[in-house]
Amino acid sequence: MLKIDRFYDARRELRKVLRHTPLIPAPLFSTDAEVYIKPENLQITGSFKVRGAYYKISTLSDAEKSRGVIACSAGNHAQGVALGSKVNGIPAKIFVPSTAPISKVEATKRYGAEVMLIDGIYDDAYAAACAEVERTQAVFVHPFNDDDVIAGQGTIGLEILEEMSSVEAVVVPVGGGGLASGIAIAIKTLNPNCKVYGVQAAGAPSMATSYHAGLITASSSVKTFADGIAVKKPGELTYDYCSKYLDDIVTVSDDEIATAIVMLMEGQKLIAEGAGATALAAIHFKKIPAIKGKKVVALLSGGNIDVTILSRVIHRGLVTSGRSSELNIELLDRPGELTRVSSIISGLGANVVSVNHTRGNAHNDINACFLRIAMETRDFAHLEEIRSAMQKAGYTVND
Amino acid sequence: MLKIDRFYDARRELRKVLRHTPLIPAPLFSTDAEVYIKPENLQITGSFKVRGAYYKISTLSDAEKSRGVIACSAGNHAQGVALGSKVNGIPAKIFVPSTAPISKVEATKRYGAEVMLIDGIYDDAYAAACAEVERTQAVFVHPFNDDDVIAGQGTIGLEILEEMSSVEAVVVPVGGGGLASGIAIAIKTLNPNCKVYGVQAAGAPSMATSYHAGLITASSSVKTFADGIAVKKPGELTYDYCSKYLDDIVTVSDDEIATAIVMLMEGQKLIAEGAGATALAAIHFKKIPAIKGKKVVALLSGGNIDVTILSRVIHRGLVTSGRSSELNIELLDRPGELTRVSSIISGLGANVVSVNHTRGNAHNDINACFLRIAMETRDFAHLEEIRSAMQKAGYTVND
Repeated sequence: MLKIDRFYDARRELRKVLRHTPLIPAPLFSTDAEVYIKPENLQITGSFKVRGAYYKISTLSDAEKSRGVIACSAGNHAQGVALGSKVNGIPAKIFVPSTAPISKVEATKRYGAEVMLIDGIYDDAYAAACAEVERTQAVFVHPFNDDDVIAGQGTIGLEILEEMSSVEAVVVPVGGGGLASGIAIAIKTLNPNCKVYGVQAAGAPSMATSYHAGLITASSSVKTFADGIAVKKPGELTYDYCSKYLDDIVTVSDDEIATAIVMLMEGQKLIAEGAGATALAAIHFKKIPAIKGKKVVALLSGGNIDVTILSRVIHRGLVTSGRSSELNIELLDRPGELTRVSSIISGLGANVVSVNHTRGNAHNDINACFLRIAMETRDFAHLEEIRSAMQKAGYTVND
Repeated sequence: MLKIDRFYDARRELRKVLRHTPLIPAPLFSTDAEVYIKPENLQITGSFKVRGAYYKISTLSDAEKSRGVIACSAGNHAQGVALGSKVNGIPAKIFVPSTAPISKVEATKRYGAEVMLIDGIYDDAYAAACAEVERTQAVFVHPFNDDDVIAGQGTIGLEILEEMSSVEAVVVPVGGGGLASGIAIAIKTLNPNCKVYGVQAAGAPSMATSYHAGLITASSSVKTFADGIAVKKPGELTYDYCSKYLDDIVTVSDDEIATAIVMLMEGQKLIAEGAGATALAAIHFKKIPAIKGKKVVALLSGGNIDVTILSRVIHRGLVTSGRSSELNIELLDRPGELTRVSSIISGLGANVVSVNHTRGNAHNDINACFLRIAMETRDFAHLEEIRSAMQKAGYTVND
């Protein structure tokens, strides 16, 4: 069983590489709890994963170190292992599925690791990594099911208690469960009154299902844009720790996660990846009623989100808040109509982004045509204002 | 003349409201200087402006406080004054031009200030604010040309020296010059060997022009998306301080600022507004050769950027790095062509975002038609790969 002295040992080792990530007040996320963010997106490598990976590597014997380490990951763990190996001066081979985002592969290479791109999905890369471990006897650094890795991630729990001894609840994203296990063991050992809650994506709920069922249960498939926690099956160690130490595990939808990401950008000026925003999504959407009135720390676990994905998340956020709008207008196919319509829009202060003008189909009047206009608007009220101005001017506005 | 003891007084007052914003290593921005970010985007209100505004308000007499304060701003200063007034329990009226982004107006209201929306641009709002000062004798809180405001902003200089006494250069965004004056006075007083550089947007260079001309010079117009530093004319106080204490003032283009914003998002997980990213843009694009080999702190002054603007900045960043691409393909107008083209694209792992299919014009073959396809690609090499596959398959690809 993992003891607290291992966490302090990890803390001492990690001093060499870690950045200090002080708590940030986040009043926007709840009116009835006092919320703080632990911003591990600002950690070196952009996520907490470097803690477990680095500590694991630092515990290896000289003989083990000389054989190097092997890992399999398409994301934050890869960067953590790469940095940990570089600082320890040992070789690292990271097996990455060929479908991984190019930006994460590049980041891993920048830290000096050898990246083995394997055709296929994660399972294929994992099989190739296992074969290489067999061949070379190098140490495999598991992303979560390992006591040293768990102790490394758990140093976050020590830091939270040191900076805010009065904390009453900590909310943590859960994928494989290494982070949640580490934080929960640290906190429950030092302050058993502090609650620790886990949050999973609704599309990848294997630890939540296992926790509530009382036994390890695999998901047949996972579907969420929070790729950092899209895990099919909990580890045996992490399942045991989470069952014993977590006060509950809840889930959030991808839309709730996307909303939290946009709130973090606008309200806190922080970039979160999908997995990183789950704890704040759970707080904002009141998934954990027991934190009401409490002093709560939400872990923002990482910020390594592909900019193209982020761009889509923003777009979704703009649409759901009425700031990106579309109008479908029916008009007669005659000169001057486009001018009239666009002058109504500009007169009301909206900004046209794109225009699509098409003739009608067989069911419409032979003179009918349609205009689809995308605009930047202030909010839903602004869109309504434009819509009624169009109707007043004699146009039919379709939904 | 402003003395250093005023800065310490400001520091003491500001303890009540400020968040601590510790330096963050930023190796991505330079290979030949050691760069750190002072992240004032993480400050309460999302920018440094709260420092000067709050300190100014705290120095008022009880009689002055009872009459309340007035300010004119469409942005960060408005939020700073609003928060400063709220904490001091005094009324604030902020005059805002009606063209201001709704998000900034809402944020100002959230801090409890009365917002007076004035039809027109900044100058109209300023005239209305002056009339109200005349009528009510309330104190006008100037955004930069005021010694107390300058001392408040200068507390950043104290913090930088305390956290990193070995700093050799500090790079600071310049608009009206209050921030640069405060930081330069603090740093040059306590460590005259440390260099302090100012950075302006090339489209709003009035302080740079004035600094190099040796007298206050107004810009006839300003044109930059960095609205926080789009100032037509330096203040008299700030011009004197900047002339005396800054080692140089350089400018950066809007495209350079946009690149720095995307780098901050991807590499540091931080949101910067245009003004906020200028110092890092100047470092990355080597505008200040003298910092080579030095330990440099870049001030990230704020993160209050409208999400719609941010979305455009990201799009620009994706296009300039080859991750958002467009192909214009000429093909014969016959069934099956769209299928062939799209299967080539998907076979090479690119993601189609939009398709525009049009018939040719009078100059083309009567059977010709054009396909404009927008895609998500990995980089320029990936786009080239798709382009040559198209050509190999017999299609003409236009630029």
